[in-house]
Amino acid sequence: MRVLLVGGSGTIGREVAAALKAQGLDVVEVSRHTRPLSVDLAQPESIRAMYAALGRVDAVVSAAGEAKFAPLAQLGDGDFELSLRNKLMGQVNLVRFGLPNLNDGGSFTLTSGVLARSPMPGSAAISLVNAGLEGFTRAAALEAPRGIRVNVVSPPWVTETLRALKMPGEGLPAAQVARAYVRSVTGQETGAVIEP
Amino acid sequence: MRVLLVGGSGTIGREVAAALKAQGLDVVEVSRHTRPLSVDLAQPESIRAMYAALGRVDAVVSAAGEAKFAPLAQLGDGDFELSLRNKLMGQVNLVRFGLPNLNDGGSFTLTSGVLARSPMPGSAAISLVNAGLEGFTRAAALEAPRGIRVNVVSPPWVTETLRALKMPGEGLPAAQVARAYVRSVTGQETGAVIEP
Repeated sequence: MRVLLVGGSGTIGREVAAALKAQGLDVVEVSRHTRPLSVDLAQPESIRAMYAALGRVDAVVSAAGEAKFAPLAQLGDGDFELSLRNKLMGQVNLVRFGLPNLNDGGSFTLTSGVLARSPMPGSAAISLVNAGLEGFTRAAALEAPRGIRVNVVSPPWVTETLRALKMPGEGLPAAQVARAYVRSVTGQETGAVIEP
Repeated sequence: MRVLLVGGSGTIGREVAAALKAQGLDVVEVSRHTRPLSVDLAQPESIRAMYAALGRVDAVVSAAGEAKFAPLAQLGDGDFELSLRNKLMGQVNLVRFGLPNLNDGGSFTLTSGVLARSPMPGSAAISLVNAGLEGFTRAAALEAPRGIRVNVVSPPWVTETLRALKMPGEGLPAAQVARAYVRSVTGQETGAVIEP
């Protein structure tokens, strides 16, 4: 099974890559910095070009996407634009543009996050983006052709992130979050918001 | 109590206007076609200009916003852009730009819709937008200053709409949906997704 993984170098992405490989899957990692294949989620043409060069895959997994965390009063027009172009439409476009590349019965797995449902001060743009991704996923799954499935993993706060940001709380280790991505790729669910 | 109502000429908006007036509230209706005050939700500068001319209000209610309904395979980049600029960011910007116009303890009431949670084929862009509005509302409510509340009404299918589109089902009459907006304006809730 050949899997495209976008964002395989992030805190969660690294563990997703390891977990998919541990299942014996052939993982093609693509990010802004990989060569010869690269992708910038904020640029629709970059996504189209990646798919044109990629060929067929059985699954597309995204653990990528930027959105801006800042107090509501400080979030500017540009911060919302970045968040919508990158984490939101970047992942939506991975599905829209990638459908022809997927083998029958393949799957898309996107990433939202706990702030969709449990916001905190500073999360207005991210909560919007994460919830929007979940709404899109539920709908897109109804129309994906040829048995293709569409899910979104909604990670909780990750232990490694909390430690890096010196935030309180235990969180869930990224390696444990990664199991939700494996479940989406190898299981039968579709239209699901998977909470690790 | 002075209330700005954006989208007061739509199927739901007309009933919201009537219901707010029945409570004795002073309703200022603004849409693309009203004069001297008008607003185009898709244009941030239009929203800023409206607020500059409006003065203080106690509540902002939006029953407005376009988003594109079409099969996923036919939704183009422009359809997503329109949906994000208009129904999603238009209503988000009503909150962002309008905060200084609101009296202490005032409220914002936006409109999402049942497709956020219960999608159907053709609703990918609308489900994204509606769910995004709900995520934004939950987060923005945490940061609104001076006791200002932020809610979103998520209307089900409306009887009048189902009849106009010759769709099956009973739906809920718009006059009944309008009560949810009154509840948001006159009640104490904040950060709520109100289902009529």
